[in-house]
Amino acid sequence: MRLHEQKERRVNYEQVFDTAIERLHSEGRYRVFIDILRNKGSYPNARCFAGHNGPKPITVWCSNDYLAMGQHPKVIAAMEEALHDVGAGSGGTRNIGGNTHYHIDLEGELADLHGKEGALLFTSGYVSNDATLSTLAKILPGCVIFSDEFNHASMIAGIRNSGAEKKIFRHNDVAHLEELLAETDPALPKLIAFESVYSMDADIAPIHAICDLAEKYNALTYIDEVHAVGMYGARGGGISERDEAAHRIDIIEGTLGKAFGVMGGYVAADKRIIDVIRSYAPGFIFTTSLSPVLVAGVLAAVRHLKASNAEREAQQEAASTLKELFAEAGLPVMASTTHIVPLMVGDPVRAKKVSDILLAEYGVYVQPINFPTVPRGTERLRFTPGPQHTRAMMVDLTKALVEIWHRLDLEMKQAA
Amino acid sequence: MRLHEQKERRVNYEQVFDTAIERLHSEGRYRVFIDILRNKGSYPNARCFAGHNGPKPITVWCSNDYLAMGQHPKVIAAMEEALHDVGAGSGGTRNIGGNTHYHIDLEGELADLHGKEGALLFTSGYVSNDATLSTLAKILPGCVIFSDEFNHASMIAGIRNSGAEKKIFRHNDVAHLEELLAETDPALPKLIAFESVYSMDADIAPIHAICDLAEKYNALTYIDEVHAVGMYGARGGGISERDEAAHRIDIIEGTLGKAFGVMGGYVAADKRIIDVIRSYAPGFIFTTSLSPVLVAGVLAAVRHLKASNAEREAQQEAASTLKELFAEAGLPVMASTTHIVPLMVGDPVRAKKVSDILLAEYGVYVQPINFPTVPRGTERLRFTPGPQHTRAMMVDLTKALVEIWHRLDLEMKQAA
Repeated sequence: MRLHEQKERRVNYEQVFDTAIERLHSEGRYRVFIDILRNKGSYPNARCFAGHNGPKPITVWCSNDYLAMGQHPKVIAAMEEALHDVGAGSGGTRNIGGNTHYHIDLEGELADLHGKEGALLFTSGYVSNDATLSTLAKILPGCVIFSDEFNHASMIAGIRNSGAEKKIFRHNDVAHLEELLAETDPALPKLIAFESVYSMDADIAPIHAICDLAEKYNALTYIDEVHAVGMYGARGGGISERDEAAHRIDIIEGTLGKAFGVMGGYVAADKRIIDVIRSYAPGFIFTTSLSPVLVAGVLAAVRHLKASNAEREAQQEAASTLKELFAEAGLPVMASTTHIVPLMVGDPVRAKKVSDILLAEYGVYVQPINFPTVPRGTERLRFTPGPQHTRAMMVDLTKALVEIWHRLDLEMKQAA
Repeated sequence: MRLHEQKERRVNYEQVFDTAIERLHSEGRYRVFIDILRNKGSYPNARCFAGHNGPKPITVWCSNDYLAMGQHPKVIAAMEEALHDVGAGSGGTRNIGGNTHYHIDLEGELADLHGKEGALLFTSGYVSNDATLSTLAKILPGCVIFSDEFNHASMIAGIRNSGAEKKIFRHNDVAHLEELLAETDPALPKLIAFESVYSMDADIAPIHAICDLAEKYNALTYIDEVHAVGMYGARGGGISERDEAAHRIDIIEGTLGKAFGVMGGYVAADKRIIDVIRSYAPGFIFTTSLSPVLVAGVLAAVRHLKASNAEREAQQEAASTLKELFAEAGLPVMASTTHIVPLMVGDPVRAKKVSDILLAEYGVYVQPINFPTVPRGTERLRFTPGPQHTRAMMVDLTKALVEIWHRLDLEMKQAA
């Protein structure tokens, strides 16, 4: 009897996992990864391995390698040289054997890019946000973190993992931010965490207004510039460079995997803050450092984009052309003051359907963006045209979308 | 008056950060990263950039590139090919443009290595532990995690970030583990998390005994094999392969940055579990995927080590030679049943002093291991001899250590 009872009460793990997956299917947001290889030198062309008839040529419209620096001859050459000079991996954590001369050079280059005393590399942008925010708030007992409601999952993870009190302000709403700051005990440490470019909504934070509040209420400022570094500012220092606000921000966080075309993340700040993160963040201390091959590639990309505006200008031009074409055709392009072109669909099943037809019939690859990346009911397609997407490609893309929009009876706007 | 009061109560951020750094200096565990470059093809030789007279030749004794696969011609060739085929980075998350054919091939290869249905790549071993453990425990409401007291920082982070109840069992102590399991409500989901090779203590978990308990108490099992994959088992599947226990473990976690010589991490498990982690773990979803260049290198390393035992055998021989030489000389080498050779010093200041003298006077690079990596009072040097460390190098190293041990009046053992 007792044995029988115990058996009845046993957890059925398989059932719990099945239920979790079933939930995604029933909401139409179970993710299927598209199996592709980009063609070096002819990006945005790529090969797709879905289906049965061998790789099929496609055009990629949703890469975050915004400036195609991942294909740049200087980047490839630098990586090849490092590969032959020092080998594949670093072989250790930064503290135990994995601190190479490349890492030190790149940290110097990134500190200079943002006009800061120091910088610190992480294995990804996700880890730089998670590790830095969680560690900062732990070092500052009683710290209250003020977080924009649209902040990226990695910032949310860092804030939650810090255990600090969090106050969420409405997206880019400085009046609401001030309300929350004013009601908080002046004796407590404070940190305002926000992004410069919000990648899914394609809008930009009012950096100076936020810094004004930070000064008034004695708060530290933390900006995520992952979608802006390399892309904005005369040297690619991001929106904080473009708006001449970098000196007002305490910690600038960036990625090496988007405009810089490779992989990894970093923060730039004064030496004291860098030393604290370096010394206390488990996500920095206890991990094998970035491969020197990657670091060498990023060094070449950062140096190139400090000196060259050509890629930034061509990308901005491509983005405004595509926005215009979409608007003229009556497609529901979302307002965007950035290099990103989002097209609203509004439900996950139809967003996926559009994406599937584009890939199967038009050789166009653009991924549908679903919850939890965007709120439910705002599912969308997100286009990232780059310097290599031609006007002819954009015209073809627009025609394809209009055809599909009609076929699926999706809502059109008044043609602009 | 009120203004004055407010000013008095303002947080002095600089002072808080200075205090945090001062604490490290006063405990003798402020970390200075040694600036090195390895010489591809002649590892363990490297160049050190410390000091003023340009790079100085050194021998690296503390790399986790245990088998020198980071220098292997097959690995270098595969990375070079991928670099020229597809470029530097993946350009996106696995879901949005960053899922390459290389990723899919490597996940298949790793699943096969461990005899599992599937595998999932992460940007690091740290992230694979953090993301998988925190997500699993959230998917299983009420989950209790049983964690070995010596588990790695990344597992501790994942367990803490899950918010699940944690019960810590004494290191490798199955009787204590059973006590904790027996006192826990049978109706609750349970997960036992442990490592196979404990890297700092150089001992090995009793996998079968732990699996017996997992079956008896209906618990899932999670093993961290980062210091064992590539190193143990006929195909490099780790201790779980060597001990024929892989089929009894639910989730096997490994790294691509140690014996496989490159960078990244993974878990292998049945398809259902892989699908849950893939679909729900923020640390997997919201991050740029591993560079295809790295993935191509790992593919070559994993395939090579599945077929070749030569590297494993040479490494094991090097490790036992070094243990013997240390013991014969009366150096306090710690008991080790693994490929790692730790030498106890017992305090952070003297451990650093030994390391500094080795580097400055003998061109030997071995990093002191301090708190929080090991408990206070057990600071040590940790040697990782590889296939390329010759007996002559080991004899020289032993002589140098004996000289320094006498100079600093450190404790010797009875010579073996």
